[in-house]
Amino acid sequence: MKSFNPPERTLMGPGPSNLDPRVLAALSRPIVGHLDPAFAAMMEELKELLRYAFRTDNALTYPVSAPGSAGMETCFVNLVEPGDKVIVCRNGVFGGRMIENANRYGAQTVIVEDDWGMPVDPQKLEDALKANPDTKIVAFVQAETSTGAESDTKALAEIAHRHGALVIVDAVTALGGTPVLVDEWGVDAIYSGSQKCLSCVPGLSPVSFGERAIAKLQARETPVPSWFLDLNLVLAYWNAEGGKRTYHHTAPVNSLYALHESLLLLQAEGLENAWARHKALHEKLAAGLRKLGLEFVVPAGARLPQLNAVKVPAGVDETAVRTKLLKDYNLEIGAGLGPLAGKVWRIGLMGYTCRQENVLFCLAALADVLSSRDTRS
Amino acid sequence: MKSFNPPERTLMGPGPSNLDPRVLAALSRPIVGHLDPAFAAMMEELKELLRYAFRTDNALTYPVSAPGSAGMETCFVNLVEPGDKVIVCRNGVFGGRMIENANRYGAQTVIVEDDWGMPVDPQKLEDALKANPDTKIVAFVQAETSTGAESDTKALAEIAHRHGALVIVDAVTALGGTPVLVDEWGVDAIYSGSQKCLSCVPGLSPVSFGERAIAKLQARETPVPSWFLDLNLVLAYWNAEGGKRTYHHTAPVNSLYALHESLLLLQAEGLENAWARHKALHEKLAAGLRKLGLEFVVPAGARLPQLNAVKVPAGVDETAVRTKLLKDYNLEIGAGLGPLAGKVWRIGLMGYTCRQENVLFCLAALADVLSSRDTRS
Repeated sequence: MKSFNPPERTLMGPGPSNLDPRVLAALSRPIVGHLDPAFAAMMEELKELLRYAFRTDNALTYPVSAPGSAGMETCFVNLVEPGDKVIVCRNGVFGGRMIENANRYGAQTVIVEDDWGMPVDPQKLEDALKANPDTKIVAFVQAETSTGAESDTKALAEIAHRHGALVIVDAVTALGGTPVLVDEWGVDAIYSGSQKCLSCVPGLSPVSFGERAIAKLQARETPVPSWFLDLNLVLAYWNAEGGKRTYHHTAPVNSLYALHESLLLLQAEGLENAWARHKALHEKLAAGLRKLGLEFVVPAGARLPQLNAVKVPAGVDETAVRTKLLKDYNLEIGAGLGPLAGKVWRIGLMGYTCRQENVLFCLAALADVLSSRDTRS
Repeated sequence: MKSFNPPERTLMGPGPSNLDPRVLAALSRPIVGHLDPAFAAMMEELKELLRYAFRTDNALTYPVSAPGSAGMETCFVNLVEPGDKVIVCRNGVFGGRMIENANRYGAQTVIVEDDWGMPVDPQKLEDALKANPDTKIVAFVQAETSTGAESDTKALAEIAHRHGALVIVDAVTALGGTPVLVDEWGVDAIYSGSQKCLSCVPGLSPVSFGERAIAKLQARETPVPSWFLDLNLVLAYWNAEGGKRTYHHTAPVNSLYALHESLLLLQAEGLENAWARHKALHEKLAAGLRKLGLEFVVPAGARLPQLNAVKVPAGVDETAVRTKLLKDYNLEIGAGLGPLAGKVWRIGLMGYTCRQENVLFCLAALADVLSSRDTRS
């Protein structure tokens, strides 16, 4: 066996996205201990930078030491108690994963269904809350990575709060690519991923919790059924009173260097500018895809700029296209998941990947490959 | 805020250890997708290399995408069902953490206590099993990082099996520094950490499960109370039948490059040679520490080569010594945990850190600092 030398790919799938060279450089700086005072100072900056990205003043804002799925689990395992009624809005894979989470922690789960490719319908949530006035938590995905649909977090959170429920929001693909205004919208608990529009390495999940979520956590009658993700314990490391950190687990030191650097890049660009860049280049990509005769899964108005799901045209071999793009162009685009498997491609425009050269390259490569005989079905 | 430029430390605490430049180089290679065929081939090699490190043929051997604490949780959350009787042997911090894990998953936990600094007493385990013949699982820490004591996994596993119980072993600090013979000793479930004697970045937890553990998992009557750590799901990604991997979560791609490289280094040296290096340099360090008048916490015969806990002499300011070593020598040594806080130092000799130059440097720096007026209490 030899050292692994990965190919150089342009990553235009559903994540991970490509890394800015500055992020790669930060990643490979010398390792220090997870209780080193120099590292602790960096952790404080990291929390501040995450508050900037989430548009929040929440003190409890930090990166979970594991991928986005563990960020989801951090929200559910801490906030759901056995018997709690939880409404989950499902319009794709990740809403389904939220149901799995809620069920495993003993929730009484009510599902609000929307078609894959559609945003969550606020009226359906309103109806479900009227029918279930004892609902404790409403959970939904702002940016459904499996379809490219964006739901209206502001509207959904307003409805949930009016009925006295907390909201848990999945912002894995949303954060950094489209507005996520935690304080303005009053989101109670939110999680994201490092490897999407933040363009850091995968393996970290930024989370943020507001006061109502913390009050629910503190009022628990049962222990949090996870030691690793128990916020009561993690906080002694991440949010130590008086700066005296207590060891909980060994933080992923080098990955946190990378996250710090990627957030500095976001701050330097400015959040609004990053959103505008994603939007403008999405429009350029969308125009090009239309010229190639490709139709979007999601109706206009609900499309995420950073995740473009398009239908595989009749007569085209879905897998052959992706394989040829990867093999001959070093270009990764994503396949469909669940009921969309084999029927769509998912073209990501996330973070550092979201640059004009990549849009033009992707369109040109797609045009080549779609006109090739090898990709007819 | 500026890019974070960490100081260059010599890491002789309880982990993380220093990284071989080859591991840092691997870490910062270009990112690829977690379903990329090139990456999938690397994953297969990684599993093979982990089997080498664990001395096992277990098919179910892979790195959990989170730190060692999540490896511990993977073992407990998958194998413990509510009501199961679990014996945990506690002789330090990490046995205590195992108890926390078992309790949170509804185990009926029986604790076998030994003094901090002593190995687990096999006779006490035997007695506990006789008194609790319905025990399903016995759990213990081979290398107790909080004290530097090594317990006899072979003997303890033999006793547990004779009484029909499975064993879960914590090998976080053990793996790569001292023999861990999973198949020869019949260990049923084991977890380690990437950042100790493997000298990879923190954030990954190699685990391995044998047939009896898998049978217990498959016979569960209740779902695994974690979506992220559920082996049934993770395996569709890591151990896919016929090589067709299913997305579960986004793997920490770059950290896995680094683990692959650190395991290649271990394989090139040879496991037996790595154990011998740790032992020989521990003896050199121990002789030097004795000359400085420092006494070990753990009696001779049960000392881990890779973790040397020594008592703080009377009249010496524990914190001042560590602070001066860090500030003036860029040398990290560890503090005591729990009842040993303020009373001991923990000097790590793990993986890439375990080199003659570091032993000599550490002894010389300690001699300087201990003779300084600044460190008297």
